[in-house]
Amino acid sequence: MPTSENGSPPVYREIAEEMRALIRSGQYADGDRLPGENTIMERHGVARATARQALSVLTNEGLAVAVRGSGIYVRLFRPVRRHGARRLSKELWGNGRAIWQTDGADRAYRVDGLRVEETAAREHVARVLGLEEGAGVLRRSRRYLVEDRPVQTAVSFFSLSLMAEHADHPAARSIRSHDSGPGGVYARLSELGLAPVHFTEEIRVRMPAPEELRELHLAAGTPVLEVARTALAAGNRPVEFNQITMDGSAYVLQYDFEA
Amino acid sequence: MPTSENGSPPVYREIAEEMRALIRSGQYADGDRLPGENTIMERHGVARATARQALSVLTNEGLAVAVRGSGIYVRLFRPVRRHGARRLSKELWGNGRAIWQTDGADRAYRVDGLRVEETAAREHVARVLGLEEGAGVLRRSRRYLVEDRPVQTAVSFFSLSLMAEHADHPAARSIRSHDSGPGGVYARLSELGLAPVHFTEEIRVRMPAPEELRELHLAAGTPVLEVARTALAAGNRPVEFNQITMDGSAYVLQYDFEA
Repeated sequence: MPTSENGSPPVYREIAEEMRALIRSGQYADGDRLPGENTIMERHGVARATARQALSVLTNEGLAVAVRGSGIYVRLFRPVRRHGARRLSKELWGNGRAIWQTDGADRAYRVDGLRVEETAAREHVARVLGLEEGAGVLRRSRRYLVEDRPVQTAVSFFSLSLMAEHADHPAARSIRSHDSGPGGVYARLSELGLAPVHFTEEIRVRMPAPEELRELHLAAGTPVLEVARTALAAGNRPVEFNQITMDGSAYVLQYDFEA
Repeated sequence: MPTSENGSPPVYREIAEEMRALIRSGQYADGDRLPGENTIMERHGVARATARQALSVLTNEGLAVAVRGSGIYVRLFRPVRRHGARRLSKELWGNGRAIWQTDGADRAYRVDGLRVEETAAREHVARVLGLEEGAGVLRRSRRYLVEDRPVQTAVSFFSLSLMAEHADHPAARSIRSHDSGPGGVYARLSELGLAPVHFTEEIRVRMPAPEELRELHLAAGTPVLEVARTALAAGNRPVEFNQITMDGSAYVLQYDFEA
């Protein structure tokens, strides 16, 4: 913690800590309006700039959000714990369960905006899937909501020429249709002899683009997590590339591994 | 991409895409000053608000940073690829190499601000290490720099009572001293019969606190990644808890796992 000249933390930090403690203890609940600048100035005998700094500590930490023209509100949402390896284990999709069922086990979730289309692979997607740029890919995009809050969008890509090799197989048709069936696309790939055996996830963080702000209903100052996942079948054959964009305040990502 | 009423992307997005392409193609290099609002207004015949929006798309994406009173500059820094499992494999620290050597393999890195002290465990640290709140812990903190740019701070905690069980062992003394020796603290824990066999990493993202802005020299609008790592020895015994804070624009985290 930064200290002022006499060695104690600056006043705005002290005020922020006091308010943080009130939020953590439950005295301010989710959705409550926090004291505004004027109230803080009066209560603590500080200047407006100090009051504003104290509030911005809380919004920067994601504990509160500013609603334009209204005030600063407590925002608590129990983050979704997303367990990298466990959720993608073969036992899961092999048994016809949706991957999502491990993440949101006890919580109301739904998917909307599902769109399935054929498109030309851009450079990055082509490289990951081992295709020429512009090659045909199947693109499945959708949005996930937990307790009615949008938490992530996901866009998956599959090689159309790979699908064409299995054109007559019902599993290939399922991957191209809106309902990919029990266990989802990984179960279908498995029926085609293309079961994913290895996953690579790459995580990046950045501020959202304007369209992401809107799609994920992000509060000002909320970063997004980007997870780029490649699913590889036997022989290191890439069978899916998935670009996931998450509300950074809604997730804890967990990975477990051996030494 | 959002579209305006006639179905084409809004002008500010088009301008931003044009500038993004110039950055990606190398026509604007790292550190170059981008055209300012006035230049964009003139070149594209747009209002100041539109020019400003176009520039803010690039700063929001982390491709450019605003330097107060001077302008907007391209900021390119090849992110450090941090490979969750590979970097913590026993072969590595078992052979006396620093974990960092896999991350920054080909790049100049250094550590500064190393501080080792005894302190009382706060609630969260105590819970992870299986201690009572307020129990004595050894705290090792430091900052990592790549090519002279600060990229992360890390604060590790070890149970003092666990160290006391091995008080006479040179490895226990090394963990308490500034130079933890070849292979670092994991190699020393191993010599004490407490070799980590399992790691759990939890990833969160948020905007930085003021002191983190300063310590990591973060540009405005840069989020931080928080990695909380627990190292477990045989019998699920927690032997280290490490709180890592990373410049979100400087890292790609990679995790590989089997289905």
